[in-house]
Amino acid sequence: MQRDLDRLMSERLLDAIIVEGPDGLGAANPAFNYFVRGAHLTGTVIKLRNQPAMLVHSDWEVLQAAETGLVCVSSSRWNMRDIMQRIPDRLAARVELRRQMLTDLGVTGRVGVYGTVQAGPFLALQRGIEAAMPGLTFVAESDKDLISAARLTKDEHEIAVMRAVGQKTCAVVQAAVDYICSGRADGAFVVDSQTGARMTIGDVRAVIDRELAARGMVGEGTIFAQGRDAGLPHARGQDTMELQRGQAIVFDIFPKDASGYYHDMTRTFAIDYATPELQQAYDDVMGAFNEVIQEFELGAPTKPYQTMVCDYFEARGHATIGKTYPIEEGYIHSLGHGLGLEVHEDFGFPSLADRGDVLVTGAVFSVEPGLYYPSKGYGVRVEDTYWCTPDGTFESLTDFPKELVIHLKGTRQ
Amino acid sequence: MQRDLDRLMSERLLDAIIVEGPDGLGAANPAFNYFVRGAHLTGTVIKLRNQPAMLVHSDWEVLQAAETGLVCVSSSRWNMRDIMQRIPDRLAARVELRRQMLTDLGVTGRVGVYGTVQAGPFLALQRGIEAAMPGLTFVAESDKDLISAARLTKDEHEIAVMRAVGQKTCAVVQAAVDYICSGRADGAFVVDSQTGARMTIGDVRAVIDRELAARGMVGEGTIFAQGRDAGLPHARGQDTMELQRGQAIVFDIFPKDASGYYHDMTRTFAIDYATPELQQAYDDVMGAFNEVIQEFELGAPTKPYQTMVCDYFEARGHATIGKTYPIEEGYIHSLGHGLGLEVHEDFGFPSLADRGDVLVTGAVFSVEPGLYYPSKGYGVRVEDTYWCTPDGTFESLTDFPKELVIHLKGTRQ
Repeated sequence: MQRDLDRLMSERLLDAIIVEGPDGLGAANPAFNYFVRGAHLTGTVIKLRNQPAMLVHSDWEVLQAAETGLVCVSSSRWNMRDIMQRIPDRLAARVELRRQMLTDLGVTGRVGVYGTVQAGPFLALQRGIEAAMPGLTFVAESDKDLISAARLTKDEHEIAVMRAVGQKTCAVVQAAVDYICSGRADGAFVVDSQTGARMTIGDVRAVIDRELAARGMVGEGTIFAQGRDAGLPHARGQDTMELQRGQAIVFDIFPKDASGYYHDMTRTFAIDYATPELQQAYDDVMGAFNEVIQEFELGAPTKPYQTMVCDYFEARGHATIGKTYPIEEGYIHSLGHGLGLEVHEDFGFPSLADRGDVLVTGAVFSVEPGLYYPSKGYGVRVEDTYWCTPDGTFESLTDFPKELVIHLKGTRQ
Repeated sequence: MQRDLDRLMSERLLDAIIVEGPDGLGAANPAFNYFVRGAHLTGTVIKLRNQPAMLVHSDWEVLQAAETGLVCVSSSRWNMRDIMQRIPDRLAARVELRRQMLTDLGVTGRVGVYGTVQAGPFLALQRGIEAAMPGLTFVAESDKDLISAARLTKDEHEIAVMRAVGQKTCAVVQAAVDYICSGRADGAFVVDSQTGARMTIGDVRAVIDRELAARGMVGEGTIFAQGRDAGLPHARGQDTMELQRGQAIVFDIFPKDASGYYHDMTRTFAIDYATPELQQAYDDVMGAFNEVIQEFELGAPTKPYQTMVCDYFEARGHATIGKTYPIEEGYIHSLGHGLGLEVHEDFGFPSLADRGDVLVTGAVFSVEPGLYYPSKGYGVRVEDTYWCTPDGTFESLTDFPKELVIHLKGTRQ
């Protein structure tokens, strides 16, 4: 949580932090958004240890800056025109501007750097500043960095927001299911009752996108993958493909709303019926899901849960990443990941090295066991977003049924 | 254009380039998207000079990787599990993985780095690799970098895409105008004919967002700002504010569609009538607009056009950034900016240092003179997206009228 930042800076011996907020990144700069709370602006957040965070912003964006609640510092305090008249080289001028800014704001010592940046300009600026400011060292945290550590535990406000995003996401999934079920069977296919044409994945995607937009959400990369594509975890699904009864459909949706916070959920559906093989795989996935959530315990390390799921699947004849690497079929990924201002945050249930993740109050993470058999033409994944409450229990923020088979209207059930 | 990359690498003495494509960035990583053409995947583009570009990708994303048309290299060629068993430190393991990859793919010498990255992990990885690979130097280009230079000139395919995005954007603006004009006057305010309630900026924004979504577009940050807010170039407009007849409304919309390419246009509207002062400011802006586009000439440097607009405004009694800095009222920004896979690309009409930009065939850029008087409660901006055609003429991709006053239905005109 934000209130942990000074403690975390102290533990990491950081005198200051700089969070870059360059132009045009929006939600792709979660570290910056964590401070500016989704305001649409560019700028730089600078925080000294045990001081409130400052936002250096343009005069043009004074309204947005004021909304953030941060200490506002106008960038016009430093005169770029004067600097550029003295130093014609643009990079050298930017280094000088930044040197003046950091000096005036008291930034020195060990300084952590965060935020989403452009590789080349960022590297050039860092090299220039380190050369120009001998008393300053940039600390490049790679894993479990300060901002990620703060963001790992969500506060009450963040949970309220994430709960609402979860509810809206479930409503979108329901609308897509309702649309599919409004169709009627035509042999192996599904016919749209309004148009009389065979329903395609593109038709379903149009419903999904419309329902997302109606709720102020954006859902890039939504997966609606049928048959073999359902067996490839990151295949999005082909819009021209016609829906087919009895086929596995993996529907994985991870939208955000204007708050910048994400939800992540997956359901696997089969229209009207499932083959026995698909039903068995589904039952195995649900068995793993239900076993693992029953065992969640506050303070427990996360890696054993991945091992538990691998063991569960291995005992039922599925290859897993726990014993086979690289792996293409079976259980081929890890059990879940943190989420919040990013759909993948710095918390997980590792298959490879243990990074020391532990179930802590305030953690929000996906639980998503799956089985993948592209060579057999199917895959299964079921995913909820879970939250560890302040009293150490675990609550799903995904209030949606987990039934494999959905029935077309007018089809005998 | 992409076909210029080898020439540009040669001019910059670059032996190879690396374009990072980390998880979760989507459209916020334009340099990577320039190579993968909007495919939803993570990975790394590596190109040796005079060799086709390679994409190192995960086995999970083999379908998306194949769609890019790049030379596909599976990341499973390098065994991260083995490395991590040997090197427990995660950063050191990632450095070793990257060292093996770069060595095997023949990357050495002067290597340019590009793409959108997370500041800390990127800096840590670069430092580690430079220490581990003495024959390799990372070149951090800051201005007019290689990828930006290639992206500056759009090819035929890119222009076709951008023309379509422009047409869709104009249709959204028309829909918003139609909605406003469907209202009726109620004293100073506008009443929604359907609901009988006073129309707010939020109502208009809902129409804009719905019409964008219906065309597969996303438009974060759309500006619909009235009165004083119209005088602050980056104020988005307050959703609860009621529309008022006779007030300046700056409507600046810059959406992208699934291709990743943007359009950027602004119109200033006044409902039913404009005050003489606002009409004069509008006429001055349109005068500047029409003068400057008439003077566009292939091969001409861009900076004199900014000077021309400043001179035009100064002659009519407006302060400008050409003579006053910092500046809060009058003409306070530059004439335009490049756009494409980003809404602001590396091309402009500078007020400060001349960066050597020249009007070249294939360039796509905004033209957006404006006048800002927040203290007087208004602002004006008019913006089209222009393209320099292969025969050296200049064409607007924004096919939309430029009329200040729009009329409510039923109001005497």
